[in-house]
Amino acid sequence: MKIILVGASGTIGQAIEQELKERHEIIRVGRSSGDQQADITDPASIRHLFEQVGPFDALISAAGKVHFGALAEMGEAEFAVGLKDKLMGQVNLVLIGREFANDGASFTLTSGVLSHDPIRYGASASMVNGAIDSFVRSAALELPRGMRINSVSPTVVEEALPGYGPYFRGYKAVPAADAALAYAKSTEGAQTGQTYRVW
Amino acid sequence: MKIILVGASGTIGQAIEQELKERHEIIRVGRSSGDQQADITDPASIRHLFEQVGPFDALISAAGKVHFGALAEMGEAEFAVGLKDKLMGQVNLVLIGREFANDGASFTLTSGVLSHDPIRYGASASMVNGAIDSFVRSAALELPRGMRINSVSPTVVEEALPGYGPYFRGYKAVPAADAALAYAKSTEGAQTGQTYRVW
Repeated sequence: MKIILVGASGTIGQAIEQELKERHEIIRVGRSSGDQQADITDPASIRHLFEQVGPFDALISAAGKVHFGALAEMGEAEFAVGLKDKLMGQVNLVLIGREFANDGASFTLTSGVLSHDPIRYGASASMVNGAIDSFVRSAALELPRGMRINSVSPTVVEEALPGYGPYFRGYKAVPAADAALAYAKSTEGAQTGQTYRVW
Repeated sequence: MKIILVGASGTIGQAIEQELKERHEIIRVGRSSGDQQADITDPASIRHLFEQVGPFDALISAAGKVHFGALAEMGEAEFAVGLKDKLMGQVNLVLIGREFANDGASFTLTSGVLSHDPIRYGASASMVNGAIDSFVRSAALELPRGMRINSVSPTVVEEALPGYGPYFRGYKAVPAADAALAYAKSTEGAQTGQTYRVW
């Protein structure tokens, strides 16, 4: 399969590449690194990416920023970051990418454990993750030409504990390689409308 | 209690008023009707509402629009409607309202069954409903001064079947009065961070 991997340079992105590269052609996409560059907050940049890459069999997104911060200090502007980047950035990869996708192509987006198991400073992440999982469930009903869509909802990964550990005390971290398996299941399997919880 | 009811003129809003009016002071808010008018897509309008009403003990929102339509015909602009209105409109009622709320005040937002049980044409509704339920779960951790927050997730209500029935074939509708009970549980109870499913 020809697989577009958005967020390839991230901790989870690298693990996904490791899991899939022996079996598939991987187009690595990053904001400023990789085989192709794209800014997922800019629909024109997303469209340019697909025009460069051409028809594809799978898209995996392990990208997207949210604002982490105390709710007391968050207003509409702080929530807008995650809505524009991790939520609509990933959703626009689907809305624009479907035009370029081969029949039966799959889309796999990234949400996260905070939709169900929240932490301090995570209100925007929770909101966005919940939105992604529910979008995937619904979009699966209407994608054309046998296309599929799922999300992967990882908990904090072991490799991120040096930075994120203090926010996730008591959470059992998983190796990024375990999260990568869920992306493989989504991409190489047959299910659609699912959220694979890696927690 | 002094309760601000946003969306008071709607089908569910009217049922909420019926359920609560014997026991509480209800400030009915609508876009163009009610005791006070507010446009929840406009933060300045929301702030003006709270300045007019003053301190309050509970806010209930049964308001918020999303775009219903075929996913094939939806792009970023169609998703933006629900993100600005039903999602951030309701979230801004909390973010701005917390400044005016009494100690121990409660916020109750409205999501809906489509987050978990999707239909054709409902991709934006699913996304927004999932976002609201997860936001509520997380915001409950950080609201100050004993404030609480919950969401009510109704299925289609019987009173709406003339318009919405064709989209919800096979869904067991509930009377709006049953949905109203969940708003009373949220407002008059003690729980926080919950989503009350009326389905």
